[in-house]
Amino acid sequence: MGIKQEIQSEIIQAVETVKQINPMAGSITNSVTINLVANAQLAVGGSAAMVYLPDEAEFLAKTGGATYVNVGTLLPIYEKTLPHVAKVLHEAGKPWVLDPVAVGIGSLRTQLLKQFKVFKPTIIRGNASEIIALAGLWELDGGTDESNVRGVDSTDSVHAAKKAAIALAKWTGGAVAVSGETDLITDGSIIAISYGGSYFMEKITGAGCSLGGVAAVYAAAANPFIAALTASAVYNLAGKRAELKVDGPGSFQVQFLDELYKATAEEIANNPFDLEEV
Amino acid sequence: MGIKQEIQSEIIQAVETVKQINPMAGSITNSVTINLVANAQLAVGGSAAMVYLPDEAEFLAKTGGATYVNVGTLLPIYEKTLPHVAKVLHEAGKPWVLDPVAVGIGSLRTQLLKQFKVFKPTIIRGNASEIIALAGLWELDGGTDESNVRGVDSTDSVHAAKKAAIALAKWTGGAVAVSGETDLITDGSIIAISYGGSYFMEKITGAGCSLGGVAAVYAAAANPFIAALTASAVYNLAGKRAELKVDGPGSFQVQFLDELYKATAEEIANNPFDLEEV
Amino acid sequence: MGIKQEIQSEIIQAVETVKQINPMAGSITNSVTINLVANAQLAVGGSAAMVYLPDEAEFLAKTGGATYVNVGTLLPIYEKTLPHVAKVLHEAGKPWVLDPVAVGIGSLRTQLLKQFKVFKPTIIRGNASEIIALAGLWELDGGTDESNVRGVDSTDSVHAAKKAAIALAKWTGGAVAVSGETDLITDGSIIAISYGGSYFMEKITGAGCSLGGVAAVYAAAANPFIAALTASAVYNLAGKRAELKVDGPGSFQVQFLDELYKATAEEIANNPFDLEEV
Repeated sequence: MGIKQEIQSEIIQAVETVKQINPMAGSITNSVTINLVANAQLAVGGSAAMVYLPDEAEFLAKTGGATYVNVGTLLPIYEKTLPHVAKVLHEAGKPWVLDPVAVGIGSLRTQLLKQFKVFKPTIIRGNASEIIALAGLWELDGGTDESNVRGVDSTDSVHAAKKAAIALAKWTGGAVAVSGETDLITDGSIIAISYGGSYFMEKITGAGCSLGGVAAVYAAAANPFIAALTASAVYNLAGKRAELKVDGPGSFQVQFLDELYKATAEEIANNPFDLEEV
Repeated sequence: MGIKQEIQSEIIQAVETVKQINPMAGSITNSVTINLVANAQLAVGGSAAMVYLPDEAEFLAKTGGATYVNVGTLLPIYEKTLPHVAKVLHEAGKPWVLDPVAVGIGSLRTQLLKQFKVFKPTIIRGNASEIIALAGLWELDGGTDESNVRGVDSTDSVHAAKKAAIALAKWTGGAVAVSGETDLITDGSIIAISYGGSYFMEKITGAGCSLGGVAAVYAAAANPFIAALTASAVYNLAGKRAELKVDGPGSFQVQFLDELYKATAEEIANNPFDLEEV
Repeated sequence: MGIKQEIQSEIIQAVETVKQINPMAGSITNSVTINLVANAQLAVGGSAAMVYLPDEAEFLAKTGGATYVNVGTLLPIYEKTLPHVAKVLHEAGKPWVLDPVAVGIGSLRTQLLKQFKVFKPTIIRGNASEIIALAGLWELDGGTDESNVRGVDSTDSVHAAKKAAIALAKWTGGAVAVSGETDLITDGSIIAISYGGSYFMEKITGAGCSLGGVAAVYAAAANPFIAALTASAVYNLAGKRAELKVDGPGSFQVQFLDELYKATAEEIANNPFDLEEV
């Protein structure tokens, strides 16, 4: 069995395990897309719970299979909640996904994202500009001081974030997923390029956030690289399928959730991807 | 006219009154499902308004027909807002619905739910695990210290919560609705079992919360038992109908709102239910 | 070319510019409809970003094309964020849209809305009751002390708010849009009445908020009057079209987003409207 077949077999196992054990992935996430994150997590077979307070986040971190942390719409309480939960997760050796949304905007966001460095998120998911900016903030290879982040949208290509993604993955010992027209997923030694998706995914809000939330669900059942790749694969598959059936972003979002729910383990594993050595 | 016919006639009256007077039911609720709560309240003919601050909650409590309180995603301000609004509602004799989401997680949640005991919520709506845990927290019959709450999902059956539901209803003098595969509604002396619904209701987020919000709308136009039963009936009816027309959770949520909107008073009253004496 | 043709030509330019430059309109908005606001902004070709903290709001205000401020679900931090961002916007001469949701409820809301008077929002969008109450709060013509605001719904007709709308527009030097069965848009010297829409727009939550968010997107590419009229026109067009294809509020919301996305510049400019001199 080649390396690709091995990975496909691990994807199948991740998807099936999730559908069997229904793992709870708690989230501290933004209020714009919080509903889509939860519904996407449920659609793939996980369970969702969202909180804001430090002790509640600690409870979910300890009892859940994995945790999703998205810094999208920071509230004052996040100053206490986020470093605390990241520390708890790190010390407990529990998987967690960091979504460094809009890194570069505001002082609390910068302070929190800096603090996360030592707590080594298991998976980091972002668009190219966010990945490059986070690597810069953490003073790793491929990062840059000059953030190209414009609000929440990327102005860099996925390819441009390759070096930063590898450096981040090497630092954390986990995986990094760069979302874009094609997705790049790496654990620092191997790179997967996942194909598919839809232009409608940029015409709705939350395609990226909910991908992060779904990656957390899979991280409760697989290693970081497989979890990130499985999440990207089911998103690319569901996006491609949904686009064929709709003609606007409203119906795309509805159909996309349906396709997330209907995708089988084999179909997800067979969604096109390429591998390359770092 | 038998007791069942009498209840059906009261359900018809509740539904029609709501469609006529369009009662405002203010909410302090979680950010995950806040949009679905509001849209479900509008779909059945009510009016919605959501707030966080103590004086705004007091305003809605006093001017609205009923109030919905959901402790899902607590923010620090809730420590001031929730006991205050519960007190205002109790002293004004205004109906309110308590949704003790994820009772057992975190210290503020426990503290708030304990405080609510003396303010006697008119309707308590929760899944079986939440109802059992709340009865335990209030040291009533049927409750337990060992909470089986796993995040926001139930690990107990509706039947297992019967004793706790009755004890809670006797304490408050109102009604309790336990949501599950079948729903149990009681005022402490009579029990209704409401049938229908869909397996998709566990595959979307907010079926429970929005049922609580809709119960608040009906509580502005009927007694607690009828309000809780009417809300459960329209949910079971709309869920059953929506499931027949869709093949995924995204389209289920859309179709479900449509069915909530289209259900007539007679259809809701005729949704199957059984009665038993306590 | 008559005045109406001139306006239609400016509407076409506004729509096409937005689709070309994809302007970012940051928002500080309520948590009930925050997702719909973002998705509507994306559907018409804009870009969205939502924040709560003062320095983040300042960042978006300075870098975005325009800003949307909605006081729907106030959090304590808004006491710092909102006056600060309004001041930044006013001093930078950047367009911003104020949505005075539920003016009259609570002391912070009243205090914030009073403070906004000197920062002259470029566009004010509200229902008739909100426009009348805001004019009253600012002690302008057509306003009243006796607020008819019942939660978030209007109890006054659009026509009744005409005097208040004109007075507000004259004070700010911008535009005012009164939403209702027909919409009234004025810059203080000319009035446009925009026709269309759907009765389903009162059966979903967020038709008004997201119209405000979309007006902010157009305000990044057109003068306040044209921006407000363009937003009202595309909403009336999309609402009318969506209603023909659906039979409930769930599917209406989905179809409405699709129609927002599909409407062409010419179709929006040709959506029926009348003009009158003040």
